Amino acid sequence: MTGFVSFVGSGPGDPELLTVKAIQRLKAAEVILFDDLSSGPILDHAGSQAELIGVGKRAGRASPKQHHVSQLLVDYASQGAHVVRLKSGDPGIFGRLEEELVALQAANIDFEIIPGVTAASAAAAAARIPLTRRHSARRVQFITGHDVDGVLPEDINLAAIADPQCTTVVYMPKRTFPKLAALLIANDISPRTPALLAESVSTEAENFYRSTLEELAEHLNQDPGAAPGLILIGPLAEADSNYVGDSPEVS
Amino acid sequence: MTGFVSFVGSGPGDPELLTVKAIQRLKAAEVILFDDLSSGPILDHAGSQAELIGVGKRAGRASPKQHHVSQLLVDYASQGAHVVRLKSGDPGIFGRLEEELVALQAANIDFEIIPGVTAASAAAAAARIPLTRRHSARRVQFITGHDVDGVLPEDINLAAIADPQCTTVVYMPKRTFPKLAALLIANDISPRTPALLAESVSTEAENFYRSTLEELAEHLNQDPGAAPGLILIGPLAEADSNYVGDSPEVS
Repeated sequence: MTGFVSFVGSGPGDPELLTVKAIQRLKAAEVILFDDLSSGPILDHAGSQAELIGVGKRAGRASPKQHHVSQLLVDYASQGAHVVRLKSGDPGIFGRLEEELVALQAANIDFEIIPGVTAASAAAAAARIPLTRRHSARRVQFITGHDVDGVLPEDINLAAIADPQCTTVVYMPKRTFPKLAALLIANDISPRTPALLAESVSTEAENFYRSTLEELAEHLNQDPGAAPGLILIGPLAEADSNYVGDSPEVS
Repeated sequence: MTGFVSFVGSGPGDPELLTVKAIQRLKAAEVILFDDLSSGPILDHAGSQAELIGVGKRAGRASPKQHHVSQLLVDYASQGAHVVRLKSGDPGIFGRLEEELVALQAANIDFEIIPGVTAASAAAAAARIPLTRRHSARRVQFITGHDVDGVLPEDINLAAIADPQCTTVVYMPKRTFPKLAALLIANDISPRTPALLAESVSTEAENFYRSTLEELAEHLNQDPGAAPGLILIGPLAEADSNYVGDSPEVS
């Protein structure tokens, strides 16, 4: 008897941003492997039979290695379990999903992928701005600030990123943002390009910091802080003040 | 007494990919303005008190103008209603959200934005592939094939899009894809770059067509078909065959 793995996007953190299908899978799971950002009240949906295993890999802390996580998936599924692999946001975006898929393939274990709300969508919604705009932000792109080794990837397409006519969202940005900002400015994007840091999106600790590329790099260079965050760069990153209503708190 | 507008992402079509919060807003709404792709069983969550108004703008059909949709939002909210503006996928991604926000601002009507699962995440999940990959797809970008006038936008950044080391997802791609593909190939991307057409994602009519940039352009030039779709370009667009399990049906 072989088990089955459901890769499930948990959304950005607010349990109300789980999908119906994600909740169904959590209720039915026999084993749940979860990341740091897909824990807390999200796990209240797990059934009482479920074994819960934290495999967080939060920047800067000791954590299980990727091959260890893949091995856990294979081991539990090989014993016949229905395993839910809970990943924050959408599992297909910077979730190292492929490495786990390859491990399942090698063990001949079947799987499904349940998409989720990615952090960029949640951050923009909470900041009350769109990610795209006619004419000035026709393109939206997501990049990561962290390679597997925790450093800025070396083979990034700086020309594509240093484009003031799009929205760029940097996932896991904080520790490498000063370097990224310097590289972008060297590639002729204005240091005054709007940049918005969104921290702990969709949780009680949610916080926004509106700035520019240059000033935000300086701010994070002095104190990156421990809260998970992402950074939106581009004309829409300063659009909030155009709209009515209660603005999110700005520090 | 002034009303309130909730912009709500309905996800890609499958009602089980609605978030908990989206369902709460649908149940509470007094008026729901919905697009073609956010209709069907999704609207079963509406309460019996809700007035349902279709404002679809599907390519090629006569449909309400954008300013008419914005005016409906303002009119209903001005009468004190809690209005849900349901948008397919995530409201911040190619949803013309900003034009509706500006109309609400002018009328001093407050709003909130509930993010949703965007079509790119759902298409990749259904095709059993990630959108990002270490080294060969560090960047994922979304563009639209349709300007407001239904033509390919002229001011797109072709160099950024013609990058074989990223995943590009084209929303509303079908009618302009032959032109886009020709422009990308003229910008030195290989005609044999993998391209995956995903149609009617997360519905019973879901269908995939795996091809290359050049061949898919030829295919769509001959018959774009009527089904809504999106196109994934890049190394991951052919990755499915690497993984085990039931593949989605490939036409």
